[in-house]
Amino acid sequence: MYRTHNCGELRSKHIGQKVKLSGWVQLKRDKGGMIWIDLRDRYGITQLAIEEANTSKEIIETIDKIGREYVISVTGEVIERYSKNDKMPTGDIEIKVEEIEILNESETPPFTIIDNSDGGDELRMKYRYLDIRRNPVKNALLLRHKMAQEIRKYLDEKDFVEVETPVLIKSTPEGARDFVVPSRMHQGEFYALPQSPQTFKQLLMIAGMDKYFQIVKCFRDEDLRADRQPEFTQVDCEMSFVNQNDIIATFEAMTKHLFKTIKNIDIDYDFPQMTYKEAMEKYGNDKPDIRFGMTITDITNLVKGKDFVVFDSAEYIGAIALENASEYSRKQIDALTDFVKTPQIGAKGLVYCKYSTDGSFKSSVDKFFNENDWTKISQAMQAKQGDLILIIAGEKDASLHALSELRLKLANENGLRSKDNFAPLWVIEFPLLEYDKETDRFYAKHHPFTAPFDEDIKLFDTDPSKIRAKAYDLVINGVEIGGGSIRIFNKDLQALMFKNLGFSEEEAQEQFGFLMNAFKYGAPPHGGIALGFDRLVSMFGGSDSIRDYIAFPKNNAGRDVMIESPSTISQAQLDELGLIIKK
Amino acid sequence: MYRTHNCGELRSKHIGQKVKLSGWVQLKRDKGGMIWIDLRDRYGITQLAIEEANTSKEIIETIDKIGREYVISVTGEVIERYSKNDKMPTGDIEIKVEEIEILNESETPPFTIIDNSDGGDELRMKYRYLDIRRNPVKNALLLRHKMAQEIRKYLDEKDFVEVETPVLIKSTPEGARDFVVPSRMHQGEFYALPQSPQTFKQLLMIAGMDKYFQIVKCFRDEDLRADRQPEFTQVDCEMSFVNQNDIIATFEAMTKHLFKTIKNIDIDYDFPQMTYKEAMEKYGNDKPDIRFGMTITDITNLVKGKDFVVFDSAEYIGAIALENASEYSRKQIDALTDFVKTPQIGAKGLVYCKYSTDGSFKSSVDKFFNENDWTKISQAMQAKQGDLILIIAGEKDASLHALSELRLKLANENGLRSKDNFAPLWVIEFPLLEYDKETDRFYAKHHPFTAPFDEDIKLFDTDPSKIRAKAYDLVINGVEIGGGSIRIFNKDLQALMFKNLGFSEEEAQEQFGFLMNAFKYGAPPHGGIALGFDRLVSMFGGSDSIRDYIAFPKNNAGRDVMIESPSTISQAQLDELGLIIKK
Repeated sequence: MYRTHNCGELRSKHIGQKVKLSGWVQLKRDKGGMIWIDLRDRYGITQLAIEEANTSKEIIETIDKIGREYVISVTGEVIERYSKNDKMPTGDIEIKVEEIEILNESETPPFTIIDNSDGGDELRMKYRYLDIRRNPVKNALLLRHKMAQEIRKYLDEKDFVEVETPVLIKSTPEGARDFVVPSRMHQGEFYALPQSPQTFKQLLMIAGMDKYFQIVKCFRDEDLRADRQPEFTQVDCEMSFVNQNDIIATFEAMTKHLFKTIKNIDIDYDFPQMTYKEAMEKYGNDKPDIRFGMTITDITNLVKGKDFVVFDSAEYIGAIALENASEYSRKQIDALTDFVKTPQIGAKGLVYCKYSTDGSFKSSVDKFFNENDWTKISQAMQAKQGDLILIIAGEKDASLHALSELRLKLANENGLRSKDNFAPLWVIEFPLLEYDKETDRFYAKHHPFTAPFDEDIKLFDTDPSKIRAKAYDLVINGVEIGGGSIRIFNKDLQALMFKNLGFSEEEAQEQFGFLMNAFKYGAPPHGGIALGFDRLVSMFGGSDSIRDYIAFPKNNAGRDVMIESPSTISQAQLDELGLIIKK
Repeated sequence: MYRTHNCGELRSKHIGQKVKLSGWVQLKRDKGGMIWIDLRDRYGITQLAIEEANTSKEIIETIDKIGREYVISVTGEVIERYSKNDKMPTGDIEIKVEEIEILNESETPPFTIIDNSDGGDELRMKYRYLDIRRNPVKNALLLRHKMAQEIRKYLDEKDFVEVETPVLIKSTPEGARDFVVPSRMHQGEFYALPQSPQTFKQLLMIAGMDKYFQIVKCFRDEDLRADRQPEFTQVDCEMSFVNQNDIIATFEAMTKHLFKTIKNIDIDYDFPQMTYKEAMEKYGNDKPDIRFGMTITDITNLVKGKDFVVFDSAEYIGAIALENASEYSRKQIDALTDFVKTPQIGAKGLVYCKYSTDGSFKSSVDKFFNENDWTKISQAMQAKQGDLILIIAGEKDASLHALSELRLKLANENGLRSKDNFAPLWVIEFPLLEYDKETDRFYAKHHPFTAPFDEDIKLFDTDPSKIRAKAYDLVINGVEIGGGSIRIFNKDLQALMFKNLGFSEEEAQEQFGFLMNAFKYGAPPHGGIALGFDRLVSMFGGSDSIRDYIAFPKNNAGRDVMIESPSTISQAQLDELGLIIKK
């Protein structure tokens, strides 16, 4: 037996007991006559005490050998600590060591196992097994486990069934790029890894499973951005005999349950619902952060015709107002101007107007706009004295994007985006289709199975871009946590949809024939949602990065630097698969 | 809103209530004047009643159109049923239909959605979404969900943490064949899909996670046998600071918990433990079915030297005794002889001796063996009057195999293997290594990370095949449900192990370098187990086949006949991956 207790559980009530502990040496301090060792495991740290005068030579010799991260086990009596440490749960006691054994040695680790020293990203990832010993990473993984458990318990109680869908499926050209798996038994053919279990969960509804969920790995072979992983985890759900409000109600309740059980936060109001149109116009963004205001006002009609050519030639002019910022210095405003002109933001420039606390206006375009003009503009914006008004003009979509980025930057700089404040929101009424100029065709904004608004179906003939979808995103603090839709369950409507996406009947049949076929045998009305689990956990953990919430993440090149994967395989393997690598 | 209740919940107490139900039409019966419809969903069946005389023409017309598997919703009053059906939970009531709506039509399904008609395996798999509507399959998936939930709850309460390990990992040549995934970003390189998360769970122990579990998909590119799937699910577990008994105790308790919560079976004894040696000698099998006796007795020394050349020339002679079978007919015994002589069993013949109820013996080798001989043999076997003694002679391993198969066949034929009777067992003390004549090297019986018995380590130099492993299998009713081991956690012992498996230092470093490296930084003593979840569920469900307990299984050619996968991919995809298919 290696232990009677773990390193996090001993308290004053255990004083006098003989115990055995095992763990890692966090720290050894020799104060001349007394040696203390902090012994660590997943559950905590317990202090070991060795009084040299009363300890055998063998034990002292063993202790001499011990360094950081050695694995040891000790036996001894729980005694009261002379100077208690109320920052540690075990701070009232220590162990008077009577026996000690080195279970395993450790070389000096490449970085120290403490909360705020990690040796940098590259080392952390290479030695992830040491990184996980650090509290921040360990706690991230414990949080992830706890959230997965709570989600499962909640959905199970609501009669959802977790069904495992296959990982080796079929490649389809819609959506992102698939990872594929060559088949050895059927040479020249491939499986694909699922980007989501979308079609399978719809088949499960047709199969009558009624309420399905799964916490499931999904795969996308994309060029990675900072916050993307080639394999990621989804909370994937589907329900039958429901409309949009049923699904929103179910997963809003689940989200509230998580806030309560995980963070002890009560959310006692309905999450607001905002149309895609409103989100784009007021926030320049389909995942608005509503922890703060500073919404965008379209002032195009108010500022045109004043001989200011920048405005007169612009498709759109929008403005935001930052509170208590009318005293911003020239330098501060120049920095904002530089920011909006960076290539990622892409604005041509920034017009400002200081709405002073004394009620006067001072702008960068005083030549063209007088106090009367600014009064009208500030009224339209509901700007107040003391505000700094910031204006961007240009092409509409681009200007809204720039205003959105500027708004978020100002909020960050002014402490309006506290990680302890959560503002959930449903964005609804997304467009069903998106037109792509380059390929001259429509793409599904969500996916080809999303149902249009009943009253918009007639627009397929006249103006497909105006069709609204029965689709909804759950957004928290400006992050898209998940999204879903009511699905098409009628085979004729599905065929119409495929046609509008430019599929020939044969292509639709070849790629989604099994689903189209299934629709013939009594498909129920159904819909669902998928939540990005990595992102949900990292939001609850208060981090912007999902990587710390994944035990063994890949880097931005899709590489696992710990196991050095991907890697070459043997010629024998290639031969068995009937594959040749192009040189 | 599509429903106020589901089709399984209405009872007498609801009589008088107005309700709305949605579901599938199981059956429509028109008895002239009265029409009944059985409406089905996941939760049950509710009878709808339509009295033609009191029903509007529109409703009757709608009902006329309705066929099997149509999706409909109805509104009406819950009324008491005239002739109650106590076989149905909803059998006390029916719905007096006031409104009816066809939500979706259905073509005539290729097989009827009833418990005992499935149209054969091929149709079932092609239309799996219809097959799942049938109770046996639906209930199998519900059982699977419930068992997964119970396992998670149990392990969570015992401080286990579910950690997701990566799916895109690295190919290693040990064990079965890997499925590989070509990397687009690193052309010519491949990820591999995990055969198990073995190395990752060991890294999690080194990372200090202490107790890990995961219900996780694993992958093996094997030529499929009847009960194998290329992707399968494991309950994968690992613990630190434990010895073999700690792990056995933990998962024995979990298994008992599952029997109690899922099947309401109390197992109030410790699971027996049997060495691999005993299992092989008494049952001819490393996964003995101990629901019944009929163990094998080695009678080699008792029967040699009696001038019967078959026995005299045999390496081994073994016998089993079937109770109450001394009156077996010639025909019955001939059938058994034919069975053991089939190529799969491979015995040369079968010797029998009828130990009659009157105490006399009658054998097929009376020329060589007298009553005195048989008395000794029957005593050694603890055979009783009325038993049929069956004897196989030949090469030892082959004879034991044949006796094992014969024993199982006789038990099946004599009703000794009831699916309602569960006999769990631990098989322990497996050999660490297996010698392969063909390649003239040792292979790890479990995997290269399994620890040897401390006292057997010295045998590496003298007789490696004698080394016992700290490995254990959980066997229930002759089925290997899972297995595991205490792992090597010392880098020198691991290096010795790799050496004995014929790895050069470079090969070991290249393939398992990350694990060997991790061992340098304080690896704790650890061990674990993995249970085959598909098999565990099917055993609890009372089936021999795992396929019914998998929502979307593949056939024996590794093919999903519903979605028609694997399939070809586009030339563009191949080009992006830098791959050429060999013609």
